[in-house]
Amino acid sequence: MRGEFELIRKYFAPLASGEAGALGLTDDAALLSPPAGRDLVLTTDAMIEGVHFLPDQPPGLVARKLLRVNLSDLAAMGAVPQGYLVTAAWPEARDEAWVAGFAEGLGEDQAIFPVRLLGGDTTRTAGPVALSLTAVGTVPAGGGLRRSTARAGDLLFVSGTIGDSVLGLRVLRGELTALDDDDRAALVVRHRLPEPRLALGQALLDEGLATAAIDLSDGLVADIGHIAETSGVAACIEAAAIPLSAATGRAVAGDPGLREALFGGGEDYELAFAAAPGQGEAIAALAERLALPITRIGALEAGRGVTLVDESGAEVPLASAGWTHF
Amino acid sequence: MRGEFELIRKYFAPLASGEAGALGLTDDAALLSPPAGRDLVLTTDAMIEGVHFLPDQPPGLVARKLLRVNLSDLAAMGAVPQGYLVTAAWPEARDEAWVAGFAEGLGEDQAIFPVRLLGGDTTRTAGPVALSLTAVGTVPAGGGLRRSTARAGDLLFVSGTIGDSVLGLRVLRGELTALDDDDRAALVVRHRLPEPRLALGQALLDEGLATAAIDLSDGLVADIGHIAETSGVAACIEAAAIPLSAATGRAVAGDPGLREALFGGGEDYELAFAAAPGQGEAIAALAERLALPITRIGALEAGRGVTLVDESGAEVPLASAGWTHF
Repeated sequence: MRGEFELIRKYFAPLASGEAGALGLTDDAALLSPPAGRDLVLTTDAMIEGVHFLPDQPPGLVARKLLRVNLSDLAAMGAVPQGYLVTAAWPEARDEAWVAGFAEGLGEDQAIFPVRLLGGDTTRTAGPVALSLTAVGTVPAGGGLRRSTARAGDLLFVSGTIGDSVLGLRVLRGELTALDDDDRAALVVRHRLPEPRLALGQALLDEGLATAAIDLSDGLVADIGHIAETSGVAACIEAAAIPLSAATGRAVAGDPGLREALFGGGEDYELAFAAAPGQGEAIAALAERLALPITRIGALEAGRGVTLVDESGAEVPLASAGWTHF
Repeated sequence: MRGEFELIRKYFAPLASGEAGALGLTDDAALLSPPAGRDLVLTTDAMIEGVHFLPDQPPGLVARKLLRVNLSDLAAMGAVPQGYLVTAAWPEARDEAWVAGFAEGLGEDQAIFPVRLLGGDTTRTAGPVALSLTAVGTVPAGGGLRRSTARAGDLLFVSGTIGDSVLGLRVLRGELTALDDDDRAALVVRHRLPEPRLALGQALLDEGLATAAIDLSDGLVADIGHIAETSGVAACIEAAAIPLSAATGRAVAGDPGLREALFGGGEDYELAFAAAPGQGEAIAALAERLALPITRIGALEAGRGVTLVDESGAEVPLASAGWTHF
């Protein structure tokens, strides 16, 4: 394989082109000038082969997921993405095609999302591929959606559908063989290529529709729990209201035992948010404008903790509070 | 071991205290408001166990080096550090004391350098410890020292002493047994705990003394080569002028074959910079004010490439152009 500097020049420098502050990736650091009147938002996430992705996952898809999970954190704050820095450590056994595929994936997503590469670091490892990405965005000065600002009486909403990603992972592991090929493929895409809900987050912030927001990475129940805990309120989620995709609906119909996994499974990368009861119509209009389903799944009240209730109002036991890698 | 959220609350949240934008590490991302009239500088570096540090390295020292190598990149731009984000992946076999030690090391350096933790991510790995850190600093708007702006006719300077770190690594590997304990300890400290030359970088920028700068991570010859290549000039380094510490001087006296390793060894984390010939006096005054030796080691001229010459002006062959992990 080429040396580090040649790899950077060949595969990564093109990803920085057009971004003056990246200095062609030839300097020690990147310069960034946030637009007047806007604050910066910074977030970082790591992904480790064997923990966050399977070793046979194509490198371009790994790169895109790495970028997208960070963009999802920006979406939860209502931020406009600006750029990113990436570190990648890979073992000698990975050939140059792996690096080329990784960079190509980043390039594909740069065509979709308004971000450019600002800087990074590549290195060897004797272990599994280890990646990290820091994403930079902006919000109006002093602004930004938060987790901790929800109020008792707010309603709880979620975008898109829940549980597809965790079922997609099961498909990749050779489970859910009763589903047809189309359903299996649809679930795998949702696991491999999450959709950061940037337009939704920005609209919620700009239009003042949400009192608090979070992106669903740890699992619906755990992440709603983060809103409840940091806001000092209790959350009640109606299990029957949680939106499922057609494929997930069929999977659960065939094996009702799967249902519980959906809400603790994590990696949905949808947004969950709290909003005052009077905002229902504005939220419905926003959903239509974005062509993105937004579903009311519960409410916040005085107290602490998260409960999941069935249609009769009886509490559904929560065996798993959320996905954890510890 | 405690769960991820408990570890963050116990060991990492205190490192973010006092930094309002870190939001107590409870949110999806950090908010950062750069001071008026200043641009942001962002840099990221990864460190992998077995590649960048030995497995028996105490975790607090690993953390401090991780922070410092990134601060060194900020120093090379003349930036004032502001904060950092960190990702850490460690195997189950590391107990909670490892995490506690890692966070403690960051805390020790937060008492020395003006930075606070802004955010991060912790996760499991089945492989070696994998770390990354993104450091954020500021420079006057439009400013910042660069690598690519040196001119033919400039003189080349370097701070501190060169080669201690690479010899310190050899000591850790059980070599250099002829040195006495004090010398061995001095070299090991230089390898484990580099000193980011922040005050020097800021002064060079503020006083307009340098035409270009870089921090020495890849090795003196390779890094001077980066200045020469990106600036479109040739560099000539006088081998006899390169400043050595007393310990390194004794090591080389005992084994002259070591000399070549010093200039390609990397991880000095001193600053090298180019300056117009008329700046010699101002640079000497700055060195005295900072109590930091600054040594003229060569000059830039029209052409390309880097040559190392001995006292007679004869070229010294460069077997190794710089440290590389590929």
